[in-house]
Amino acid sequence: MLAEVITIGDEILIGQVVDTNASYIARELNKIGVATLRITSVLDESKHILKALQGAKGEVQIVILTGGLGPTKDDVTKQTFCDFFSDTLVQDENVVANIKGLFKMYNLNLPLPANLQQAMVPSKATVLMNRHGTAPGMWMEADGVVFISLPGVPYEMKHLMQEEVLPRIAKKFDRPYIYHKTLLTYGLGESAVADRIAAWEEALPENIKLGYLPSLGKVRLRLSAQGENKREVEEEVNTKMENLRELLSDIAVGYEGETSIVERIGKILMAKNNTLSVAESCTGGKIAAEITKHPGVSSWFKGGVIPYKTELKTKLLGVPEAFIDKYNVVSIEVAEAMAEQACHMLDSDFAVATTGIAGPTQGDGIDEVGTVYIAVASPKGVFSEKFMFGKDRFRVMEKATAKAFELLWKEIAKI
Amino acid sequence: MLAEVITIGDEILIGQVVDTNASYIARELNKIGVATLRITSVLDESKHILKALQGAKGEVQIVILTGGLGPTKDDVTKQTFCDFFSDTLVQDENVVANIKGLFKMYNLNLPLPANLQQAMVPSKATVLMNRHGTAPGMWMEADGVVFISLPGVPYEMKHLMQEEVLPRIAKKFDRPYIYHKTLLTYGLGESAVADRIAAWEEALPENIKLGYLPSLGKVRLRLSAQGENKREVEEEVNTKMENLRELLSDIAVGYEGETSIVERIGKILMAKNNTLSVAESCTGGKIAAEITKHPGVSSWFKGGVIPYKTELKTKLLGVPEAFIDKYNVVSIEVAEAMAEQACHMLDSDFAVATTGIAGPTQGDGIDEVGTVYIAVASPKGVFSEKFMFGKDRFRVMEKATAKAFELLWKEIAKI
Repeated sequence: MLAEVITIGDEILIGQVVDTNASYIARELNKIGVATLRITSVLDESKHILKALQGAKGEVQIVILTGGLGPTKDDVTKQTFCDFFSDTLVQDENVVANIKGLFKMYNLNLPLPANLQQAMVPSKATVLMNRHGTAPGMWMEADGVVFISLPGVPYEMKHLMQEEVLPRIAKKFDRPYIYHKTLLTYGLGESAVADRIAAWEEALPENIKLGYLPSLGKVRLRLSAQGENKREVEEEVNTKMENLRELLSDIAVGYEGETSIVERIGKILMAKNNTLSVAESCTGGKIAAEITKHPGVSSWFKGGVIPYKTELKTKLLGVPEAFIDKYNVVSIEVAEAMAEQACHMLDSDFAVATTGIAGPTQGDGIDEVGTVYIAVASPKGVFSEKFMFGKDRFRVMEKATAKAFELLWKEIAKI
Repeated sequence: MLAEVITIGDEILIGQVVDTNASYIARELNKIGVATLRITSVLDESKHILKALQGAKGEVQIVILTGGLGPTKDDVTKQTFCDFFSDTLVQDENVVANIKGLFKMYNLNLPLPANLQQAMVPSKATVLMNRHGTAPGMWMEADGVVFISLPGVPYEMKHLMQEEVLPRIAKKFDRPYIYHKTLLTYGLGESAVADRIAAWEEALPENIKLGYLPSLGKVRLRLSAQGENKREVEEEVNTKMENLRELLSDIAVGYEGETSIVERIGKILMAKNNTLSVAESCTGGKIAAEITKHPGVSSWFKGGVIPYKTELKTKLLGVPEAFIDKYNVVSIEVAEAMAEQACHMLDSDFAVATTGIAGPTQGDGIDEVGTVYIAVASPKGVFSEKFMFGKDRFRVMEKATAKAFELLWKEIAKI
């Protein structure tokens, strides 16, 4: 079962918006056993949309289009659909009623002619009613291929996918079961991971595919398989994944979608009734922001300080000025003192502290731009490490944040 | 001048990642007068990549591929390039030196064979040196079409685009000038906006294109034009845009891409030799992280505190426990006290403070989930406002952060 996703809109092709619709549709199709063969983004012009429709026709059984259904002149998808299927637009009374209902619900003035224009649909189309907007979805079939047109507004598109498109596809087609599982690893490069697991990878059966997804400081490893029997497919992937996790036990932190490193840290802390605080200089609040994204952290996260200016390391954390002068503000000694003082001042069992030179200028440090010291204070003492994260400010901050969680997790797991 | 962008990776087609590379490349090409005709995302398999290359060949002058250049077995782009151009891989000594240099810079062990494999490139390719990763970019020409292959890691791709690809394209091709300008409007639907500006839209010259970009509560209106003369193209668009802004003066809030609000705040503070600190409870570090993303902020940003737990509002900021008990920790009074105390404890002229209930649970507050109080302390006193940002934790934190900057900017601009 193969699909093509076609996203329509000049805004995509000039890079004004990132196309998140295609990704959402591909993910949801995968869940019901439909693989996306290709994603194509084209301009809001009839000839480009027609070409994409023709290109898709021979290769896939399902074509999903988004965009170009607005009431304004720059939207041409509906007319193009008519051209492609040799059809004409007719008014759909259910859509008229839906539009009037929406205007009433939001206490708006009577619909404008442009709004009612939305009720014109190709005569051969099955209307997919859009309860959250005026542009209806459309479902048309030709030569065994299903063509589905959806509005480009993500919220409306998502509702139509869940309420109309996915149930209809599930009913119409027999589909295999597709399963993905992704292991998260921290602290080792892609080549080094590949080297370590070479023999295991070599022995993978034909039907299981391995994907490497490297990003700053971490590598995600995805296994994918499909088959008729859900239980068998999952069992086979899970068994291979367990072997992989054993091979990478020192760097594996969990599975994607399961738990993030923050959740894993929180779980251990909660179990031990321990707490955490942060003291962030060069990471400037990123570590705390990453933690507080997660709900329920207040049972183990006390809070933090961001002594961005050197003087605040004394004022907020009580690291003596003379101590900072002696060792320099960007030093292993100050990082450790910050972590220890955070435990003390914020009354936590653990603390992680960062001090470094994110760049582009030197600031108050004496080391090279890109140097970062990260310290973790725990009931067992304080531990720290020096890093060199390159010359790009944004990347230095990202890497330092990722590394801080990694060090923290390792120390917390020891307790 | 037309281009096609081809992004390669199973992770895109299963919806595991959103393809941000295509959008970036299209935007950067546009800036130098190259229009992207199509974006195609294909699986990490030779036959699909070949098909995309063949499809692009007849239609565009520039083809940019990203992805599939990793050292691991799932990456096949380089070999596919060889098949497409009837070429073979040869070792490039400059790339070998670059890889060794990178390993030395990051204090890593000697490169593995898989890393050095990255130095194998098609013999006909011009190598685009990647200073930030081991996979080089490649530039090849055939029948007047340029094919460029770049790594899929966004950071590396972006550097190669800026340092190698864009300058080479600019040198090789004569290009027109492409100009976009986008007006942001809040509070009126797409049809109503279209209705209001119908006569103006009707009178737009052929060479200026209008695009509507609706999203929740706002509509962006983009004018696009291209021509040989930069000044003329800009003048023509700017004049039409000014007319449009007048027609929509009650709902227009500004143009897209103007300097960020953090930069605007920093500029005023620096000019007055004033400083800022933050006290973030429900935003948990997001405001500080947003500020410290920008280089050079240490001349006006002192730092912050994140008293996530109620007790730390007393311990770090000196807001008396009895005061918090009297008014509740999520209240206008505590927000104002936090802002004032932040100025005092962190020795800054201005401070912004947040306290609220991001959810999903009530925490220590008594208001509804989604309630946030934001206070700004300035040399003129303290000002605060209550907001209701809905039930989604992530959105509450995002909206509170955006609103904090807005309030701060308004207060700072008054001084």
